[in-house]
Amino acid sequence: MEPKDVSTAGDVAHLGALELLTPQPDKSLWFFSDVLGMEVVHRESTSVYLRGYGDYAASTLTLTEAARPGIGRIYWRASSPEAAARRAAALAAAGRGIGWTAGDFCRGRCYHFRDPDGHPMAIYFEEEKYRAPPQLRSTLKNLPMKYVGRGVNVRRLDHLAVLCRDVPANRRFAQELLGFRLHEQVLFDNGSREIGAWLSPSIVHHQLAYVVDVKAASGRLHHISLWVDNREDVLRAADILSENGIFIEAGPARHNNSQGFYLYAYEPGGNRVEIYSGSYLIFAPDWEPVTWNEEERGSGVYWGGALPRSFLEYATPEAEAPAERVPIFDLQ
Amino acid sequence: MEPKDVSTAGDVAHLGALELLTPQPDKSLWFFSDVLGMEVVHRESTSVYLRGYGDYAASTLTLTEAARPGIGRIYWRASSPEAAARRAAALAAAGRGIGWTAGDFCRGRCYHFRDPDGHPMAIYFEEEKYRAPPQLRSTLKNLPMKYVGRGVNVRRLDHLAVLCRDVPANRRFAQELLGFRLHEQVLFDNGSREIGAWLSPSIVHHQLAYVVDVKAASGRLHHISLWVDNREDVLRAADILSENGIFIEAGPARHNNSQGFYLYAYEPGGNRVEIYSGSYLIFAPDWEPVTWNEEERGSGVYWGGALPRSFLEYATPEAEAPAERVPIFDLQ
Amino acid sequence: MEPKDVSTAGDVAHLGALELLTPQPDKSLWFFSDVLGMEVVHRESTSVYLRGYGDYAASTLTLTEAARPGIGRIYWRASSPEAAARRAAALAAAGRGIGWTAGDFCRGRCYHFRDPDGHPMAIYFEEEKYRAPPQLRSTLKNLPMKYVGRGVNVRRLDHLAVLCRDVPANRRFAQELLGFRLHEQVLFDNGSREIGAWLSPSIVHHQLAYVVDVKAASGRLHHISLWVDNREDVLRAADILSENGIFIEAGPARHNNSQGFYLYAYEPGGNRVEIYSGSYLIFAPDWEPVTWNEEERGSGVYWGGALPRSFLEYATPEAEAPAERVPIFDLQ
Amino acid sequence: MEPKDVSTAGDVAHLGALELLTPQPDKSLWFFSDVLGMEVVHRESTSVYLRGYGDYAASTLTLTEAARPGIGRIYWRASSPEAAARRAAALAAAGRGIGWTAGDFCRGRCYHFRDPDGHPMAIYFEEEKYRAPPQLRSTLKNLPMKYVGRGVNVRRLDHLAVLCRDVPANRRFAQELLGFRLHEQVLFDNGSREIGAWLSPSIVHHQLAYVVDVKAASGRLHHISLWVDNREDVLRAADILSENGIFIEAGPARHNNSQGFYLYAYEPGGNRVEIYSGSYLIFAPDWEPVTWNEEERGSGVYWGGALPRSFLEYATPEAEAPAERVPIFDLQ
Repeated sequence: MEPKDVSTAGDVAHLGALELLTPQPDKSLWFFSDVLGMEVVHRESTSVYLRGYGDYAASTLTLTEAARPGIGRIYWRASSPEAAARRAAALAAAGRGIGWTAGDFCRGRCYHFRDPDGHPMAIYFEEEKYRAPPQLRSTLKNLPMKYVGRGVNVRRLDHLAVLCRDVPANRRFAQELLGFRLHEQVLFDNGSREIGAWLSPSIVHHQLAYVVDVKAASGRLHHISLWVDNREDVLRAADILSENGIFIEAGPARHNNSQGFYLYAYEPGGNRVEIYSGSYLIFAPDWEPVTWNEEERGSGVYWGGALPRSFLEYATPEAEAPAERVPIFDLQ
Repeated sequence: MEPKDVSTAGDVAHLGALELLTPQPDKSLWFFSDVLGMEVVHRESTSVYLRGYGDYAASTLTLTEAARPGIGRIYWRASSPEAAARRAAALAAAGRGIGWTAGDFCRGRCYHFRDPDGHPMAIYFEEEKYRAPPQLRSTLKNLPMKYVGRGVNVRRLDHLAVLCRDVPANRRFAQELLGFRLHEQVLFDNGSREIGAWLSPSIVHHQLAYVVDVKAASGRLHHISLWVDNREDVLRAADILSENGIFIEAGPARHNNSQGFYLYAYEPGGNRVEIYSGSYLIFAPDWEPVTWNEEERGSGVYWGGALPRSFLEYATPEAEAPAERVPIFDLQ
Repeated sequence: MEPKDVSTAGDVAHLGALELLTPQPDKSLWFFSDVLGMEVVHRESTSVYLRGYGDYAASTLTLTEAARPGIGRIYWRASSPEAAARRAAALAAAGRGIGWTAGDFCRGRCYHFRDPDGHPMAIYFEEEKYRAPPQLRSTLKNLPMKYVGRGVNVRRLDHLAVLCRDVPANRRFAQELLGFRLHEQVLFDNGSREIGAWLSPSIVHHQLAYVVDVKAASGRLHHISLWVDNREDVLRAADILSENGIFIEAGPARHNNSQGFYLYAYEPGGNRVEIYSGSYLIFAPDWEPVTWNEEERGSGVYWGGALPRSFLEYATPEAEAPAERVPIFDLQ
Repeated sequence: MEPKDVSTAGDVAHLGALELLTPQPDKSLWFFSDVLGMEVVHRESTSVYLRGYGDYAASTLTLTEAARPGIGRIYWRASSPEAAARRAAALAAAGRGIGWTAGDFCRGRCYHFRDPDGHPMAIYFEEEKYRAPPQLRSTLKNLPMKYVGRGVNVRRLDHLAVLCRDVPANRRFAQELLGFRLHEQVLFDNGSREIGAWLSPSIVHHQLAYVVDVKAASGRLHHISLWVDNREDVLRAADILSENGIFIEAGPARHNNSQGFYLYAYEPGGNRVEIYSGSYLIFAPDWEPVTWNEEERGSGVYWGGALPRSFLEYATPEAEAPAERVPIFDLQ
């Protein structure tokens, strides 16, 4: 085990918010609000701001109208103003930085940057906590918002998985410049080819996953993931999605990697959304990343069965197949 | 084991519907519709007709405005027109019958009668099955209505428990005139005092329970019970009721008698409502009623702990305490 | 709706027991006892008798050593001695009867017969109820045996599905000679080709399913099904089976037909075993069978995805593919 | 919000292990091994070392024979050797330190100290990770041990709650010398009397709770807490404990504070053990402790009902009631 870089580890507290692009803003809003049960807190220009009942921030998901689906901005909350400044300086020094902006609804100033694959990210500290209006106040003092019991009623934002051309480069970027820990990875060809990396700023299993893009495109989203508290909630989500005509691509089932209990659906704008529970916390400060080879990884489904081919190939926005195709493999 | 009375057993198919009286019709409607997620299908005079998404009949619960809470009519569906006629004749011959009426919304002609304690009952065969409007059609062909995921979203009517002055008399009435099977009972004082009886027209554990009224009143309701599919659904119901300010009197917990997993709440009109799952089916045709004495019965809570005193004393409508009080015991 | 044949309906109370043939008796026993948590109650000759903790009879599953896997005898418990005699007479009159035998462990005299496809069946009434030894007594008086919490710890036998060459003939046999109700069916080619039928002697969704054998063999078993109380128990079963190297062919997932929550695995002897929960009770005395055509039936998986090809083709004992193959379809 | 003390926060990674004292070592071992499903990994002198299947360390619970029940040593794992040294130096400087010892089974050198109330604690970094023998290897590469499905089968150690005479003094000790964050607290008398504090070294809700000892004793244990993954697992635990004659003092139910889903039982040695799931993660780096007053705290049970008096008064070892009794209140 190498010693932790104390000056970097801990600067990012957690995944703060995600902006999702959708060419079907009304239908996407229906999906996240009526079917998944998220709460609309703000509208501005072509964006709608939402939240899960357990998110402490005013908003954690922004839906923004766009010509094509995909991930907009990925927001990381710093653990302090100083931590945000340290990360900004390091990102600038590494040539990854873009600059500070004034922030948007509920967030203060943000330092913008891109990962090597081009996904737009920002780090910030100042943030407005959620203050529920009277009709949405919970009877639990430690719950920011009432659990209303509407549809799937997801609790909070959990993580995202993005595709990239060069997994090692993006993984090292997250480790070195964001201070993330590598918790699990998939290595093929006797460990020489890195296929996927699951990273986290905390003891949560992962809040960012990088997986190789089989179409060799850039900046694409595999899925965003929303948390519910129990496996039964994921089953119930499958019932609700089915009743609402939402395509479930895979699951409910259990991954081997992460041990997470999942369901993958396509929201009406085309983006893949995971309803997620379970997994495990990584308490060990000297955790050695769990590494899976081709055989161990198998289909990625713990209980057996295979993920559909679309799970490997479909991402947002859609991309043409490259001239030279990257060999197929499974991912999570 | 005595042989079954073939001419009676099977004439009643199941508990068809319940009419609940409420002095707070608007608030009761909010509770059953918005909090429990039942669907309103009809309004007529001072009554509102509702249903669970899994009920095959057009309606299984009627809320009727009244000066005091309590049970209105208890409807039993016969297994055939001939069975209804047989029961009507037998009830008339036994001096319990009242007569036929034309039926109300969704039910054809009903034969009305009273049990020995005076609870109003009716038996009928003709009934309108639910035909969901387009927006409430399920994607499951064998599900009468869409599972909308609103609040507790109870599936169907399950059973009711009523209080009575004379348990043996009412229990025998249900066995002999309705053809019910006795599945469990509570006998105190070395078997000489019958405290409660759990009866069913089918292999379901119970659809009618008679428990002695400690206040020696007549015609009172202990609770109506609504089914959800899993124990986790009952826990989720507890969360939702708590968020909506509904008083939970007891549970979630597990009864010893019936093995049922329960939660008891008071609807705004004052009636006790159970959210229920689990229990067990009684397949044995030669089932010997399980009999509990004082010690075995204990608190009635399988995992330990006690039911609150109100569980023994509160029923609707409320009654004055009698001059000579019936000794306290636990019930379910 | 045709009127019920009162003299037949109700004569069979429920599926009493199954005999499973296995060429790997030791490994099969390990599977049912250690992994599924059933209790061994008796050994005799080449058979071992087991039970689920919630079964009221002394035994409900017999494992018998045999050269090839498959279903041995299918036992139906009659609702009375008279009902058994009535069924025996009717079966004999229909040319399906074989004759009475003395019964085996825990069951009294049995009348043996075969369904049109040749599956060996028996009907009986006399049966020994389970009397738990002290160390296996439950703290619940209405539970026949302690819930020990070993492995999957299945509660009870639920149903079986068999393959047959002629579904209508076998379905009518079950309706007319056993008094079963048809609850759901799959009809292809505009209703002209009957692919599967789900039948029950009670309000339970099904205890016997007939599905066409795509290999046109006879007397084969598709699966036996064991009940657990909650969907979460099925998920937990998937974890336990995976840890024990048991192949899970399909699930956990939810059927559209029956709404059942399932998992299918192969026990070491080769027979398919389902771990099952959910589904729904059919209270309506005038239930009209739910009929699914090709499109409605789809893959048979409510939430989407497909059952593997083996689910259609694999049954025990294995059969050669016929010269003229029956068109492929999905079943449950 | 005050800025974090960077030099202290993060030095303790997590609760590493607990030593529990028991006057009934054989029965306690039966409870933790057979009923709760923990694995015995080592025996030495009068101690037995156990683990949950999900614990990454070789052992996380030690049962040690003693005249009276109670908590033995509380082990905190440091995030690095340097962090352990820093904490040792700070504890020594504060007069709380005792000194280094060579460590016991599976742990390297430990720095021993006591909290102000006298509970014995130790901090360490070196630790042996669990290496499962072949028969206990999981089919999940990221799971240290096979999930065997024996009894409750708790996953891992989660937290402990201790009683103390002076909550503010002990709470400050944990914040200042161990770097813990205060996540929730109970303050009575208009905030002037601190009744309980819930603290954590990470984003987990709490790993150490201090609650005032109503008997004004010192060094006592309220409970240790073991994690299972779902609420349904806690319900199942209640079934298993009941079948094994283990007294369940409270629950299954849900706390308001922590939102945790709990069950409290007494192990045969007398110590209170919690089976626990749910709760919530605290991602906010600027979390303001949630503070409950008398009225808000209520019974501590979210869904209503009260915790039994024993929950306030019983702790291990038992203590005489003091001359001047501390006013009663509820705790968690």
